[in-house]
Order: sequence, then structure tokens, then C-alpha cells
Amino acid sequence: MPKLWNETIEAHRRDVREAILTHTSALVAEHGLRSVTMSQIAEKVGIGRATLYKYFPDVETILLAWHERQIAGHLEQLAQVRDQVGEPAARLRAVLGAYAHISHRSREHGDGALVAFLHRDEQVGHAQQQLHDMLRDLLAEGARTGAFRADVVPDELATYCLHAVTAARELPSEDAVHRLVMVILDAVSHTAEG
Amino acid sequence: MPKLWNETIEAHRRDVREAILTHTSALVAEHGLRSVTMSQIAEKVGIGRATLYKYFPDVETILLAWHERQIAGHLEQLAQVRDQVGEPAARLRAVLGAYAHISHRSREHGDGALVAFLHRDEQVGHAQQQLHDMLRDLLAEGARTGAFRADVVPDELATYCLHAVTAARELPSEDAVHRLVMVILDAVSHTAEG
Repeated sequence: MPKLWNETIEAHRRDVREAILTHTSALVAEHGLRSVTMSQIAEKVGIGRATLYKYFPDVETILLAWHERQIAGHLEQLAQVRDQVGEPAARLRAVLGAYAHISHRSREHGDGALVAFLHRDEQVGHAQQQLHDMLRDLLAEGARTGAFRADVVPDELATYCLHAVTAARELPSEDAVHRLVMVILDAVSHTAEG
Repeated sequence: MPKLWNETIEAHRRDVREAILTHTSALVAEHGLRSVTMSQIAEKVGIGRATLYKYFPDVETILLAWHERQIAGHLEQLAQVRDQVGEPAARLRAVLGAYAHISHRSREHGDGALVAFLHRDEQVGHAQQQLHDMLRDLLAEGARTGAFRADVVPDELATYCLHAVTAARELPSEDAVHRLVMVILDAVSHTAEG
């Protein structure tokens, strides 16, 4: 049964890889980007250093792989949030709220050096573009139903939303983040004058 | 008359320093951060290399000095805009508009490497704080007069404004920047429900 055996090996490799990513991000969050070594990671995962090097050449590569997993997970989560609820306004509120909370929480982990390192990653720009398109489509849908303002094109409103929501990183509490999302939505909502 | 002589020398030194800053920023905008040398700068300013080194040790230090001059100039400009007009809403619109246009124009100059380099500068954080306080005070004043919403504290609204306005960097035109400022202001304005 060589096929089953291969599948078992594949599943095992995936598990080890996932464990490496998770433990590395925890170590970096605890000790900072510059002080984590491959030996520490191997020990934490419970594998030999030589084995670890079969998976990744260095700490930076592990962190980038972890970050890609995070971004993919967040985008999937946001797409699910978008697809759950009915009205464009409620869906935009849900997506912006979820993204604001992700931004707010991510600021609590990791130091400035880590954020600066990760945000040189091309994946970030790509994910931002996907998120921008997601917001733009919701804003366009809501403009058609009259829920959102139509005097500014959805593309510009999406850019506005994406930038405004980054304020969540600097806000002191989840309540403040909730208020931020309300304020952002008020700006894109259809008003009497609009 | 040694005092007058000293004053003349001081004025001359200031002029040379200003010329160095201006020419360096122009050279970097044209050729990129990494390709500008001290020799090029000296030639452009019309002084010897040895003289240039009496003013600055390297290109990076010149750029940081230029950036500090830019930031100080922008803050002064924004404070003037704030003090010119009467009503809090008009003043906030004027300040946000001026800042949005500064952000929009600054994106046209320089490359990503330059922006990344300059924004490690502590001055940026300090200037952001001053701008934040300027907006917060205007928002507090307008909340008292009923022009702005009072259900969210001015401090949080100022954080919102500062982040939302960074969208100006990605917008394609001055018209789009104008619309952005309108959208941001709609969010902080007093509404029927507010």
C-alpha cells in the first residue's frame, strides 16, 4: 500500500510544518524577532535541528510562511463574514468589524520590528487588494439598493474604509474599535442630503 | 564690527544648509535614495566636497534634516489653516483638506525606499501626535457647539480622522482627495440620530 503510506507521510509533514509555524510565532511574540534561533524552534517543536532545516532555511522564512498562513486565514474569515448576512450595510459592518478587530488584536502581539519585517512581504499588498475589492463590491451593491451614498464611487469609498479601519491598531479597547466601525459606516451610509 | 561679521557668516551658513537640503531632496526624488552621492550633492549646490562634509556627514543625515524641515513647515502650515477660519467644522475641513493634499502630493515624490527610510524617523511620530492633538481640540470645540457628534470622544475621532486621511496617498486625483475629506467629515458631523 505505497499510496496510503505516502499520504501518511504527507499528512505528517503538514502537521510538522504547521507546528513549526505556530511555535515560531509564539517564540517571536514572547522574545522578539531578533533573539529567536533555529535551535530554540526545533526544541519547542520537539524535532532535531537537522529536521527543522529540511523544512525551512532560517527563522525569517518561517515567519513569512506563518504570516502567509495568517493572511490567508484572515481573508477566508472575512469572506465567510461577508457571505453570512443579508443586507449590504450589515455585511459591510460585519466585514469592517471583523477586520478592525483583527487589526486591533494584531497590534497586541509582536513588536514594531516584527511588523516592519512582515509588512515588506508582497503578500500584504496582495491581501490588501483582495480586501479592497471585497469592500468595493459590497459598497457598489449597497449603492444600488440605496443603503450607501452614491455621490462617491465605490472604489474610492473602499480606499477610505481600508485606511480608516487601520485606526483600530491605535485604539485602546474593543469598545473603541466598535465605535470606530460605527463612525466609518456613518460616512458611507446614504444621508438625507446624499 | 565682529558682531555683524558673525551675523553675516551665520546667515551664509543657513543659506548653504538650506541649499544642501533642497538640492539633496531634488536629487533623491530624481535618482532614488540609493544612487545619490555626497559628490553629486556638492556639485549641485556649487560647493566643494570638503565643505559639504563640514555641514553633514552623509546623505542619510541630510535627508533626515530635510524631512524635519518639511514636517516643521507642514505643521506650521496646518496651524495657520486652523487659525484662519471661524467655525470648528470649517476649520476641521480646512485642516484635513490641507493635510490630505500634503499626503497626496508627497506620494508623488520619492520612492517606497525613501518613504520607508524617512518614516523610521522619530520626528514623524512626534508630528503625528501634534496633528492628533490639533484635530482633537477642534473636534472637542465642535462637539460643544453641536457641529460634531458627541457620542464618540474627540480623542477617538481624531485617531479616526488621521488614519482615514492617509487614504489620500492612494487616490488618483485632487478631486478624489476632496471627496475623501467630505466623506471623513460626514462621519464626524452631528447627525439627526447622533
